[in-house]
Amino acid sequence: MPEDLRNRVDRQPTVAALSEAELLERIFPRLQMTDGHTTSTLLGPGDDAAVIAAPDGRTVISIDTQVQDQDFRLLWPNGYHTTGFDVGWKAAAQNLSDINAMGAHATSMVVSLTLPVDTPVSWVEDLADGLTAGIRELGATRCSVAGGDLGRGGEISVTVAVLGTLDGGRPVLRSGARPGDTLALAGTVGHAAAGLALLESDIPVDTLTPAERAFVDLQCRPRPPLEAGPAARAAGATAMLDISDGLQRDGRRLATASNVAVALDQARMAQLADLLAPAAARLGVDGAAWVLGGGEDHGLLATFPAGVQLPPGFTAIGSIHALGTDEGPGVLTAGRTADNGGWDHFAH
Amino acid sequence: MPEDLRNRVDRQPTVAALSEAELLERIFPRLQMTDGHTTSTLLGPGDDAAVIAAPDGRTVISIDTQVQDQDFRLLWPNGYHTTGFDVGWKAAAQNLSDINAMGAHATSMVVSLTLPVDTPVSWVEDLADGLTAGIRELGATRCSVAGGDLGRGGEISVTVAVLGTLDGGRPVLRSGARPGDTLALAGTVGHAAAGLALLESDIPVDTLTPAERAFVDLQCRPRPPLEAGPAARAAGATAMLDISDGLQRDGRRLATASNVAVALDQARMAQLADLLAPAAARLGVDGAAWVLGGGEDHGLLATFPAGVQLPPGFTAIGSIHALGTDEGPGVLTAGRTADNGGWDHFAH
Repeated sequence: MPEDLRNRVDRQPTVAALSEAELLERIFPRLQMTDGHTTSTLLGPGDDAAVIAAPDGRTVISIDTQVQDQDFRLLWPNGYHTTGFDVGWKAAAQNLSDINAMGAHATSMVVSLTLPVDTPVSWVEDLADGLTAGIRELGATRCSVAGGDLGRGGEISVTVAVLGTLDGGRPVLRSGARPGDTLALAGTVGHAAAGLALLESDIPVDTLTPAERAFVDLQCRPRPPLEAGPAARAAGATAMLDISDGLQRDGRRLATASNVAVALDQARMAQLADLLAPAAARLGVDGAAWVLGGGEDHGLLATFPAGVQLPPGFTAIGSIHALGTDEGPGVLTAGRTADNGGWDHFAH
Repeated sequence: MPEDLRNRVDRQPTVAALSEAELLERIFPRLQMTDGHTTSTLLGPGDDAAVIAAPDGRTVISIDTQVQDQDFRLLWPNGYHTTGFDVGWKAAAQNLSDINAMGAHATSMVVSLTLPVDTPVSWVEDLADGLTAGIRELGATRCSVAGGDLGRGGEISVTVAVLGTLDGGRPVLRSGARPGDTLALAGTVGHAAAGLALLESDIPVDTLTPAERAFVDLQCRPRPPLEAGPAARAAGATAMLDISDGLQRDGRRLATASNVAVALDQARMAQLADLLAPAAARLGVDGAAWVLGGGEDHGLLATFPAGVQLPPGFTAIGSIHALGTDEGPGVLTAGRTADNGGWDHFAH
């Protein structure tokens, strides 16, 4: 833990003072879901494993880890302190997004938490609160935390494995995009990257404008559009994935899996960049780079057959093309190439 | 990474030299299951999430993390270097044991791997080999690795989430033991603890006797009895759990969950300790402490109605008693109390 945080939390009880059982007693009550939640948990915490309903005879599963100083800083250059609540929320959001990207609904999470002995108990309680709030406020009404594991380590590490159900439907893969399909986006793109740039800047967090602060908040507590994934599946999406590494990289993944070219609409890219222009200007950077390279909003990139009415939450941002002779799969930003010169025809 | 290992692996390629995609290309081929394996994986690595069969409409799930310098040392005091193979095997074994303890068969694993940048690529390849070998050699013939996540960190951390199926049966909980039940053990107990004591000793690893080396091997690569869990369920086990923290602590968990007293048979405890006597004598310790306190063999502790023929792999080691007036649930080692004086009537 950085010296600064250690000083800030001095004299607060740390996890070193509690047994694993005592720490679990602090955490479990904070993981209870209440109003409006259905439960898929047939057997919850307290045994060697949990038992979760898988009503259509299949379960979707993904796993994701956040590590201190890699995926988040406890103290950012702009003075923002990452809270346990932020880390818990982001763990929920990232994992829920992976289930969303298959067109599925999340049913359960199990959490493995590695904590340095000097971690304040209150920070861990906040993490549990953030996990619960993320699940609830993002609308994962069929999901709850069914169990977990606690251990010590030299750095904070939070791993979540998340389960989901397709309710009898087919999973939407990355590989199904076909020439002529419409490329569509759900959720924001580049906002979390703007937030990251502000966190890494020397602009004090308490001097940010409300719009800038919203970018920081989205970086710390992403808001994946959880209704959009199952809606895309129902509307006949041919391919879909979570934008976790940016339109360019994730677009290339879709292109490669489907063996097609992904063409981004230049006018739509410019509109998306316009939303980021004031923050980009303040930092003296190009907001278009956030649009193409920023991923942690956890929006969805999906393709639909031409003529299909896009489900709520999606807007068209491009199209899918067949590969020409000697052309490999990739992301075509031809318009930008002509205007700007800064982008390769195929971005690698 | 300790200086010693860094020197040993100097000039070996490290993970810093590879992209995530390149490292995954090294790992995935090593995770393929071949002969004699059925697959429960309907959709494997390559998309945002995997899809696993859950034939009876439920899935069992558990999660477990191993962290460098907490759960294993890369270099032990006796000179033994923990291999990637050991860590991969142990990750498989620990997680398979949790599924076994519910009376279920494992169907799938997802793995999240956190690696310092100076980790040798070969060490990570060994880890993948160990994971695969553990699944195969322990007999988890319906299980394979369906996906995962790779990231950087300051220390090696390996998290596995494991899924399982009860094939339509009931899960065997910790809470079902009844007065009059027979207490039974499957697998070894205390052997891994003996191995840990040898690893932590100054007896050079290359001077160990074959019996001592077998204890070290069991600590590094546990062998949970995977046939025993489902067999116990089929035979009508009333309660069961994985012995991960020792007969005393795990026995107390079973006693507390079932609100009974767990009585360990003194003669059987002595027989179990006899197997450890030569190693205990060499280290000048009491092998009985390994029997009562050693857990990492990942054997099973189960209870069966009196008169039930114990399934293969189980032997009786005690019995379940109703609580007397003013008596709390716990582990009764009355015989040892009388003979030895070293043990409380109820061990806490």
